[in-house]
Order: sequence, then C-alpha cells, then structure tokens
Amino acid sequence: MPELRKDPIIGRWVIIATDRAKRPSDFVRKQEDKPAGFCPFCYGNEDKTPPEVMAYRESGTKPNQTGWWLRVVPNKFPALKIEGDLDRRGEGIYDLMNGIGAHEVIIETPDHNATMADYEEKQVEEILWSYRERMLELSKDRRFEYMMLFKNQGREAGASLDHPHSQLIAIPTVPKRVREEMDGGKAYYDFRERCVFCDMIKQELATKSRIVMENDKFVAFEPFASRFPFETWILPKRHETHFEKIQKADTGDLARILKGTLRKLRNCLDNPPYNFMVHTTPVTEGELPHYHWHIEITPKLTKVAGFEWGTGFYINPTPPEDAAAFLRENGIESVESPPIRRHA
Amino acid sequence: MPELRKDPIIGRWVIIATDRAKRPSDFVRKQEDKPAGFCPFCYGNEDKTPPEVMAYRESGTKPNQTGWWLRVVPNKFPALKIEGDLDRRGEGIYDLMNGIGAHEVIIETPDHNATMADYEEKQVEEILWSYRERMLELSKDRRFEYMMLFKNQGREAGASLDHPHSQLIAIPTVPKRVREEMDGGKAYYDFRERCVFCDMIKQELATKSRIVMENDKFVAFEPFASRFPFETWILPKRHETHFEKIQKADTGDLARILKGTLRKLRNCLDNPPYNFMVHTTPVTEGELPHYHWHIEITPKLTKVAGFEWGTGFYINPTPPEDAAAFLRENGIESVESPPIRRHA
Repeated sequence: MPELRKDPIIGRWVIIATDRAKRPSDFVRKQEDKPAGFCPFCYGNEDKTPPEVMAYRESGTKPNQTGWWLRVVPNKFPALKIEGDLDRRGEGIYDLMNGIGAHEVIIETPDHNATMADYEEKQVEEILWSYRERMLELSKDRRFEYMMLFKNQGREAGASLDHPHSQLIAIPTVPKRVREEMDGGKAYYDFRERCVFCDMIKQELATKSRIVMENDKFVAFEPFASRFPFETWILPKRHETHFEKIQKADTGDLARILKGTLRKLRNCLDNPPYNFMVHTTPVTEGELPHYHWHIEITPKLTKVAGFEWGTGFYINPTPPEDAAAFLRENGIESVESPPIRRHA
Repeated sequence: MPELRKDPIIGRWVIIATDRAKRPSDFVRKQEDKPAGFCPFCYGNEDKTPPEVMAYRESGTKPNQTGWWLRVVPNKFPALKIEGDLDRRGEGIYDLMNGIGAHEVIIETPDHNATMADYEEKQVEEILWSYRERMLELSKDRRFEYMMLFKNQGREAGASLDHPHSQLIAIPTVPKRVREEMDGGKAYYDFRERCVFCDMIKQELATKSRIVMENDKFVAFEPFASRFPFETWILPKRHETHFEKIQKADTGDLARILKGTLRKLRNCLDNPPYNFMVHTTPVTEGELPHYHWHIEITPKLTKVAGFEWGTGFYINPTPPEDAAAFLRENGIESVESPPIRRHA
C-alpha cells in the first residue's frame, strides 16, 4: 500500500509509492527512455489496458474492443490504490495516511501520432467533457477531496508513453499549490472583496500586452510573474470555481482557446514538450467567491536548476509581454501539416 | 534592468531577467547543450571572467592570474544587477521592484574534470569557508535579505558549464520555500516550544532507518516525506540558525559529511546529476528558536512532470528507508578511481 506522508515543516504531502517501488539498484543505471514499439493505448490493443471505465465509441461496439474514439482506463501502474481506508496516523512527529486514491488515464484519440494541437475541435470538446464526467463520477467517493487533472506531452515533460493521453488523480487531500492559491485568494478577497483572478482578467484585458487569445467565454494570457518562458494560463472570463461544473455550451469556446493556444505554442516553438494542469476548487467545497478555476500551460524550454527547486524562486529569461506578442502574431496556421494517421 | 515581479495570488517573487532576454525566436530551435571546448573557469583563463572578488591562491601570486586553488567571480551573465535602488512599485494590482542583487560564482577547483565527491577534504573545507566569507561580505549590503547558495552538477541539473562551481545569489526578498519553512517552524514552535528540525534530528537518530551518515557535529538523512529518490538532507545536530556563522572547528565535520554523502551518491547511483541548496535564516534576522539551517541534496533520477509542477505534490517511487539503507551499506569507496588532472 503506498503511503501519503506529510512534511512536518511545510505541510506538503508526498506519495511514497512503495507498491511500484523502484529498488535503489534500479537507479544505478540511468533510466533510459523506453524504445518506441508496442503501445497499449493504440487502437486494437484494448485488452492491454485495465478494463475501461468510460469510452466514447460507435454505437453497437462493445467495451474494451475497437470502435472507440476516446477511452478512459485505470492507470496500470497507479500512484495510489482505490481500495481501503485512509487510516490517518502518526509516527512520532510525522503524519501519514494510506495512499488511497484513483488514478485514471484519458486516452484522447486512437491516433498514436496526433497531438492536441491538431485534433478537430469536436475531439477537444469531447476530451473536456470526458474530464468533467470522470471528475463528477469520482467526486461521489467521499474519501476524495481533490481532482488533479493534467497532461504531460513529450518525454522531457514526464510522459512515459507517447500516445496522447491526459491523467486524472483523485486524492484525499488538497495539493499544496492549490491550497496556497485558495489562501492567497481568500486574503485578497478579505481585503478587497473582489476575486484576485477576476481582477487579473480585468487588468489583462485592459492592458492587452500579455493577452495571447480570447473569445466570448475565455481568455489566454501570459501571467505577469510567469515562472517559465511562454507559461500561459486560460481562465473563464466569468467567475467560476469548479471546472467540472462547466456548461456544455461553454465547452466549444474552451476547446477553441485550448487548441488554439497549444497550436501557437507548437508552431512557434518547434513542438515543445509541455505540461498543462487544471487548478480547480476542491470537490468538497461549495462555490467560493475567492477562487477561480484555470488551466496552467507550461512549455519546457529551459532547464529548472537547483536554485528553483531549492527556493521556489524562478528566473525567467523571457518577459511575458514579449512571449505574448510573439504568440499573438504567429502560429495559428502551421506551414507544414503533420501527417495524421487515422485508424477508425 | 531585470525585474522582480510578485505573483498576486500566492506571493511568489520571480526574476524576469530582461537584460539577458532570450528573444522568443531563440526558443524556436530547442536549446542545444553547448559543446565542450573553451572553459572560462579553467586555470590560465583568469582574464575570461569578470575580475575575482576573492581567491585562495599561492602567496606572491596576483589577482586574476594563475596560482589559485579557489576563485570567486561575479557571474558574467547575472540574473540580477548589483547597482541601483529597489524602487518598489505597483502596476495596477501587480507588485514589482528592480532586480537588484548579487550573483557570484565560486570556482571550486582549477581541475575542470574533478567533482566534489573526489576533492580532498581540505578543499571542501575551504569551499565551505569561502561560502561563509562571501555571505558575510554581501550581507553588509542592507538591500539584501537573503543569500541563496546552491550548486548544480551536471547538465540535467541545470549546470550550463561543466567546470565545478557553486553559485551565490543575494536577493532583496526571502524566497518562498524558505519563508514557508520559517512559518512552519514558527507554528510548530508556538505549539510545542521546540524546534521542528531538532525534533526531526532526535527522531531520526533514534529510529536510524533513514540515517545515511553522521559524525560529531552533523547528520545526513533521507527525509520522511522525501520528494525525490535519494533526496538527502544534512543538518547540524546542534540548533544553529545561520549557515554563515559556522565555526572554523566545525567545517571539518561538515566537509567530511558533505563529501561522504556526495561520494555515496556518486558511487551508488552512477554519478547522477544533482543539486544542493543551503537553506539558512535571512541575514536580516537574528537567532531564531524555530529555524535551523540545512543543506538539501536532490539527485536528478526521475523526471518531474506536470503533476508535480502543477500541484506541489510529489510522487516518490523509492521509500526513503530503502534509499538510506542502500547508501549506508554502499559507496564510500569507489571501485575505480576517476582520473584527476591537476594543473597547479
């Protein structure tokens, strides 16, 4: 059983994944990237993943067989285990609990070589909708407080399989970064009686210099204190607290701005590895006046060094205003269209 | 002039290094590692760095010429500028100030190919003493609140030059991670009237399972909630708040445990890239009952993915007890001695 252990100084929880333990000797040779070859997420290999928990598939086709265009499966090597009690306990001055949680993989497309920047908008909409469906389903489990939804694209960004996928991890605690944002948002609200995210959006739309794209419902901009070159956030313009409460009518606008931003990053920056993460209100909380869900996209263009790890202090060599201007002016259309292989 | 910009939500400061701006188009091709070749830190190339601010050198030799075994020089491409006023100001809801600070490089040895794990203990002692000297000197500048001392070894850990060096950055604000540790330490102290670090040391020495090494004055262990496989902390056993107040008599023990730990990591883990960072009390603070300086060593063995970036939540596949047992039992003597080239 993996453990959730709490740092006694700053209160950060860490998953110690004993069940998929790397033995120390496994590190003696550096981990090599797995060779390209067999892919368990590819069309036709449905029996190589744990049974699907959800799929969008052609009518008349059966679960765990062909006919799908989106599949959600439990992670075969989950960081957390779904069965059991939390069993919160202490070990001297330390706090820990069992590593209870859900770890699911959203296989975004049957196409091994596609990227989200190339999907049809309809496909992006359906991916967003599948996120929502799984979050609503998992949030029925009262052991879970938070849904972490993220995507790693490219080995440099931590993806261990190339086939396009996102991940959803349901955990029994609120991650530190989100807790900090909630606390910071609360302090700002207590002082000003306004949402800090809403205020940022207003100022960004007024000054325009850091805007990448916008449409009716959403805005994408480079944050004023960007940690990384071309870090880009997407926020709903209206105050919304829970990602999973998104309305069907809004998913089109979100799909367009997400795909558009990823497309600009892909075309302007030579297909960089990237991560995106959805920051949303814990599922156990109601509507909050001071928290506003958003997506943070971080291309991996620079190496993060000891300085950053050790201090939480970042050096960003590219002013966000320069990055935003570059993205605004370039990249929605790619010069060469990458080859798309369709299976279905 | 670079800027220090504050995230309005969580209060994290970021250096936006406009002066060494990477133009957006510089990112279109991924940054290649610089080819090995000319090294400005090598013996005989003293005129290729900014003039030294300190050196340990043979008597009778002149600054910025040969004869040294340790040199400290300003970073040629500093993240912050030494001249100017902070000029704290606002831009709408955002806060910023001028990027004032010092950025120095400690060239640890004339030997381009050496690593700290191989230095003679005397050399490590002198490096530690040079850290202390530069911190004391820079802390006379009342604009600086904090001294960030760190080392990146290996390209994967962010080092842009191979020649062994450490870095010292003096900044006008306390980095977020250290502030969090101070706040957490304070909360623990308010509750228990004991230092959380002292309590950790006591418990680790009693249970022994996470201890890597110890000597009279220092202990090295894998923290209970380690973020990374083989993350190792070194702490003075006695309650000490400021690294730069270290006594000459203690530097031998610190040099031995630091070199010993790095040697074990090097020999057990096939010379991994790593970072180490000194966490110490801000220079503007007096002695604190609740903060305890320490060194955090983080080998880079796993890739950090979106999950970690996005959430401050880590998955560690190696239990610290396993890592500590492996390091305790192995690695102080290397099978093959790496070639050491001496210049002087």
